[in-house]
Amino acid sequence: MKDKKHHFELDFSVRDYECDLQGIVNNAEYLHYLEHTRHEFLKSIGLDFFALHKQGIDAVVTRLEIDYKFPLKSGDLFVVTLDLKKKGRLRYIFIQNIYSQPEQREILCARVICTCLYNGRPVVSEKIDRAAAHFLANE
Amino acid sequence: MKDKKHHFELDFSVRDYECDLQGIVNNAEYLHYLEHTRHEFLKSIGLDFFALHKQGIDAVVTRLEIDYKFPLKSGDLFVVTLDLKKKGRLRYIFIQNIYSQPEQREILCARVICTCLYNGRPVVSEKIDRAAAHFLANE
Amino acid sequence: MKDKKHHFELDFSVRDYECDLQGIVNNAEYLHYLEHTRHEFLKSIGLDFFALHKQGIDAVVTRLEIDYKFPLKSGDLFVVTLDLKKKGRLRYIFIQNIYSQPEQREILCARVICTCLYNGRPVVSEKIDRAAAHFLANE
Amino acid sequence: MKDKKHHFELDFSVRDYECDLQGIVNNAEYLHYLEHTRHEFLKSIGLDFFALHKQGIDAVVTRLEIDYKFPLKSGDLFVVTLDLKKKGRLRYIFIQNIYSQPEQREILCARVICTCLYNGRPVVSEKIDRAAAHFLANE
Repeated sequence: MKDKKHHFELDFSVRDYECDLQGIVNNAEYLHYLEHTRHEFLKSIGLDFFALHKQGIDAVVTRLEIDYKFPLKSGDLFVVTLDLKKKGRLRYIFIQNIYSQPEQREILCARVICTCLYNGRPVVSEKIDRAAAHFLANE
Repeated sequence: MKDKKHHFELDFSVRDYECDLQGIVNNAEYLHYLEHTRHEFLKSIGLDFFALHKQGIDAVVTRLEIDYKFPLKSGDLFVVTLDLKKKGRLRYIFIQNIYSQPEQREILCARVICTCLYNGRPVVSEKIDRAAAHFLANE
Repeated sequence: MKDKKHHFELDFSVRDYECDLQGIVNNAEYLHYLEHTRHEFLKSIGLDFFALHKQGIDAVVTRLEIDYKFPLKSGDLFVVTLDLKKKGRLRYIFIQNIYSQPEQREILCARVICTCLYNGRPVVSEKIDRAAAHFLANE
Repeated sequence: MKDKKHHFELDFSVRDYECDLQGIVNNAEYLHYLEHTRHEFLKSIGLDFFALHKQGIDAVVTRLEIDYKFPLKSGDLFVVTLDLKKKGRLRYIFIQNIYSQPEQREILCARVICTCLYNGRPVVSEKIDRAAAHFLANE
């Protein structure tokens, strides 16, 4: 059950082309949902993933842990939640869950660890830290 | 039936994630097959799509016509063929067909019209015309 | 310019994962947008694509014509429009356009010809004809 | 470095449409590579994912752990490796790695936990256990 406030939430519905021949959403597609939610979160705090890329700053996923609890099917409504923590100086941890709507059934829970690269090297991005300061607490 | 030599051919097999909930390859996926074949053709004549992009030259599709004849299913083997013509100074026409293997059943036939943009404007790319000279005949 | 009422319209925004290394929406992705809009239109008239499939009725695309006018980029808002005609007894023609929002710039126009298969054979689906009766006029 | 024999290996090359606007393979796409390799492994031991689905047996991923080490780019060649273990009666663990070719640079390592569902309930699939007997050792 989803029972607390999250740093960010985004509503979606399953599109048929996201389902595979088992008739359920393909596992890879959930990564798209999670990524899109992270990028919309970034926008909500004034950061743009593609604009950052063009400035040489790439936010990249370094580790991903997903527990798939229950599959989504054609037409299902769902919400993706996001909570952000910082781990050490370089790593951001996104805790992301998906819940079906309106039943609030847990579909998956994910832990997505990201870091910033500047021209390919891990860096502390003050720009991102400043924008996300409100949310960041060391895990 | 495939009965003549083509400018280029590329072999594929259907991957399960490319199939949708009808149990057949999703219509959009065929565009990926056609695009990948065009890009491999470019490589075969010494051109690289991404390298061109980084030089400001983008080959873009301006019109697409596809007749879907018969669907591909999980595990099917197939070949994508490519023949190239030029139309006027600015347009390239790729005639592309997909045939199942080894039955040679026609899966689809496509006519893909492309043009080159240099920093967003249609241009004659001498680089591409030179590389493709062997294949180009006005339609 | 979009200047008339359509049978159906659906709003979207570009998600970053739909863009390719040219920094614009990949050509295949537009087919997803068009398909999703058709399926939502079907729902709006009481038909469900996946439910139909499970009853042995598959609506399939037999021909596609797309004119790509202008590319969508990361974060762009757009609307997909849909108008339906019937051609002869067996074919449905979907006229679909994409316009950027709020500028109403024409992104692409498409003509998508579909037919119904019942266990693999083209059929007149009275179910679909009845549901769509309000929209159908011979081209 | 890849320095031992694996239960199964499959060669791939990056297709341009798999790259996103950072110019590298999108994170979700790696799940497609991993899944396709598992399905081809199943075929190599006489099992077909889609045929199993049609018999009511679905192999589903319940947990996924991925460490992304280095990104793949347009045109890169790579191999996906697979090693299989069983954990308890119900869970299969696939250890999967991706290495660039021919440099053998480690791209990612993944641990994919799967189970079998029969009409939606976790079951011991004797069919799968028998086919995979040669590879299975408790972790």
